[in-house]
Amino acid sequence: MKVAVYPGSFDPITNGHLDIIERASKIADKLIVLVAHNISKNGMFTSTEKARLIKESVKNFSNVEIDCFEGLLVEYVKENNINFIVRGLRAISDFEMELQMAILNRKLYSGAETLFLMTSTEHSYLSSSMVKELFQMNGSVSQFVPECVEIAMKNKLCGGETNE
Amino acid sequence: MKVAVYPGSFDPITNGHLDIIERASKIADKLIVLVAHNISKNGMFTSTEKARLIKESVKNFSNVEIDCFEGLLVEYVKENNINFIVRGLRAISDFEMELQMAILNRKLYSGAETLFLMTSTEHSYLSSSMVKELFQMNGSVSQFVPECVEIAMKNKLCGGETNE
Amino acid sequence: MKVAVYPGSFDPITNGHLDIIERASKIADKLIVLVAHNISKNGMFTSTEKARLIKESVKNFSNVEIDCFEGLLVEYVKENNINFIVRGLRAISDFEMELQMAILNRKLYSGAETLFLMTSTEHSYLSSSMVKELFQMNGSVSQFVPECVEIAMKNKLCGGETNE
Amino acid sequence: MKVAVYPGSFDPITNGHLDIIERASKIADKLIVLVAHNISKNGMFTSTEKARLIKESVKNFSNVEIDCFEGLLVEYVKENNINFIVRGLRAISDFEMELQMAILNRKLYSGAETLFLMTSTEHSYLSSSMVKELFQMNGSVSQFVPECVEIAMKNKLCGGETNE
Amino acid sequence: MKVAVYPGSFDPITNGHLDIIERASKIADKLIVLVAHNISKNGMFTSTEKARLIKESVKNFSNVEIDCFEGLLVEYVKENNINFIVRGLRAISDFEMELQMAILNRKLYSGAETLFLMTSTEHSYLSSSMVKELFQMNGSVSQFVPECVEIAMKNKLCGGETNE
Amino acid sequence: MKVAVYPGSFDPITNGHLDIIERASKIADKLIVLVAHNISKNGMFTSTEKARLIKESVKNFSNVEIDCFEGLLVEYVKENNINFIVRGLRAISDFEMELQMAILNRKLYSGAETLFLMTSTEHSYLSSSMVKELFQMNGSVSQFVPECVEIAMKNKLCGGETNE
Repeated sequence: MKVAVYPGSFDPITNGHLDIIERASKIADKLIVLVAHNISKNGMFTSTEKARLIKESVKNFSNVEIDCFEGLLVEYVKENNINFIVRGLRAISDFEMELQMAILNRKLYSGAETLFLMTSTEHSYLSSSMVKELFQMNGSVSQFVPECVEIAMKNKLCGGETNE
Repeated sequence: MKVAVYPGSFDPITNGHLDIIERASKIADKLIVLVAHNISKNGMFTSTEKARLIKESVKNFSNVEIDCFEGLLVEYVKENNINFIVRGLRAISDFEMELQMAILNRKLYSGAETLFLMTSTEHSYLSSSMVKELFQMNGSVSQFVPECVEIAMKNKLCGGETNE
Repeated sequence: MKVAVYPGSFDPITNGHLDIIERASKIADKLIVLVAHNISKNGMFTSTEKARLIKESVKNFSNVEIDCFEGLLVEYVKENNINFIVRGLRAISDFEMELQMAILNRKLYSGAETLFLMTSTEHSYLSSSMVKELFQMNGSVSQFVPECVEIAMKNKLCGGETNE
Repeated sequence: MKVAVYPGSFDPITNGHLDIIERASKIADKLIVLVAHNISKNGMFTSTEKARLIKESVKNFSNVEIDCFEGLLVEYVKENNINFIVRGLRAISDFEMELQMAILNRKLYSGAETLFLMTSTEHSYLSSSMVKELFQMNGSVSQFVPECVEIAMKNKLCGGETNE
Repeated sequence: MKVAVYPGSFDPITNGHLDIIERASKIADKLIVLVAHNISKNGMFTSTEKARLIKESVKNFSNVEIDCFEGLLVEYVKENNINFIVRGLRAISDFEMELQMAILNRKLYSGAETLFLMTSTEHSYLSSSMVKELFQMNGSVSQFVPECVEIAMKNKLCGGETNE
Repeated sequence: MKVAVYPGSFDPITNGHLDIIERASKIADKLIVLVAHNISKNGMFTSTEKARLIKESVKNFSNVEIDCFEGLLVEYVKENNINFIVRGLRAISDFEMELQMAILNRKLYSGAETLFLMTSTEHSYLSSSMVKELFQMNGSVSQFVPECVEIAMKNKLCGGETNE
């Protein structure tokens, strides 16, 4: 059985992520969407909240699981016998940073292969930070994120709290 | 009458901005230089100060107006019946970020066209942050910004305050 | 009256070109689509054929004209009192070559401004050479070019001749 | 059973290609290295010769097959029920051209996913055309291609013929 | 006598820096590795600590000296009659930022030439921030930095303090 | 004594090349401008003509010599005990190709260091092929090349012959 992991900060999950998840779920027998704990970034959602929103969004994909992890991706990959690391590629800056990470990960552990999927053109402009910025300026994010995410963002605003 | 808007943070306005303003003023019947309130960035100048410095710098262009705005650019564009959004392009990173913003703005509102002007080669290295960094290291900024901006920067230093 | 020119080799005109033409036609009072004679390239269509296919494709835009020209673009721009040169931007390589051409054109004649429009995401992969390659490999080009172009390409194939 | 195809012109196969083939052979149950007939390029080797050199070079990989094809890649993919198209990514220009091709292929047929693998840093400078240029200038290519390819290149030189 | 300076933040020095230092030491009669005080960045090490780690790492290069400096690089270059500014180039984003800095430095003082060296492929993924991130996630940095740096990083962790 | 080589096809030498030559002549004790015979390209001038035009253009630089060479650059570098290979960098595409060549050259011979100089902003758009294209379209090239080159180009046109 081939297992793939799709790591990210997913703060929050967007329709662009969902597109990659749908396509990545066909590559392996099992796909783990991995919420990576990001030390340096202050997020809008906690890891638990992110995982819940992803779970809600991917409920139609039978071979997709969600997990959370703090630490080096390669440690997770080694421990769980992952075969593929899946990453979406959007633009040039993505490309370079992703290249650096893929090379580093390979240097640290060569037992898994990083597979890059091109983001669909209709999502090529889309990122979690763009969605948050748009939301903070009172723009509608409904065409960019799953419905449960939009509701959660509005609830955050009411609660007034920023987590993690 | 065709109206163009040239949005930016202008913290502070540089000779590179002025070059774009001069050229953009010939594209439309009226050009609005729009000081966009930037939530995430701590600026050197307040929006009011920025607007005053721009006004002083563009006083020779008869069809150029200055305005300030908080919120989504597309909202301003819709409310004011803007025809064109003008942006200057310098380098590759600019190109991508600008592409993303243009695509997003079009997705949110398709009634205005984003027009990109190439920054002149003599200003291709120039940015507001570079000017501020140079200034903080006691370098002379006189060849990069209008005279009124240089004076205002020195006054800031004396006053010791950082606004916005 | 403001006049814009949209120069290109249009061998043949694609839906991507049409998208730029539609948007550029709103920028100026008159838009001239200029078939530039390209010395170095062997084309599929002659300038006359290209012009006819463009004419057929843009017949619904009232302020769009078609012209052919051999020689330096800036000469045409000077002679016809053009205000804007319109160019579509797709990707990084485009960006650089376009930047070089815009700088050169400005060096040769500063009376016209080059305006860049971002290609819509749904056409970001599209180019005339891609269409021709697809066609030569018996792929269907119907979703990439106007109907009249597809018919003309098939006729070329039957006639078996390559012009220009 | 998952089947992947790794298409290319392989004129000739290099150690960089071999690195991708080795890694790609672990992604699917079967990997087909596909010699694509390239209309526009005059090659050093014929498709038959290329296939023979690849066969010789990959003989240690049990699940790798070689095939030749003229026409649209998506046609081959459809006819042979291919699940993945594998491509190696080296540099920025690669990235864009590959992006365009992936988008086009998906537009023509969405039944297969294009997976990109990063070229190893030690092969990031390597290409078939560089190998040929080096060879034409009497440089040694032994560290860049399999031994059988070096011998075949020398034989070509003796025979003096350029095929395809 | 030709003197070169290799400025950087070196927080901490990596094997990639060492590779550039070794090669740059052959370009000039004397090479000064210059620890630039970076206002905006919170470092892991103080300038004094950085200088000590560099000194330890380059002790085998007879014509390499270490210095610290606050302020504009061009001021240092002028005062010390530097002939060359040496910079390593890795990727595209590097390239642009470096280009901007080189152009600016030349605008401020044209008496020194900026020379760019390509980072070796085996270090192309390597950066000080990557090393720090890896370290913070409990990854081993031994193959990326000199031994003295690894020890110093571990000591920092024990002491628990972050300087500068 | 340090010797640098500045290789290129120089078909013909432009003011951009001259700018690099002037700056490179200060890096080494002797600078050799090397006209590389290019197999694949049909040039406007023969190697002998190119060398004569360069000689005429650099006569004011006392430590600059001109040479012609067929074959691998590294062979020339080895035979002549060259210390530095000098290359000018303009844009992204340049950057990548240059990176590839530098890596390859180092792989073939590590005894010389490739030094990159940034092209001045006022020449960033300039290339030999652009000059030739401009000339073929009857544009004036006087601001882009030395006077002797402009005269030689006009003489070529009269003679009607294209060499090499």
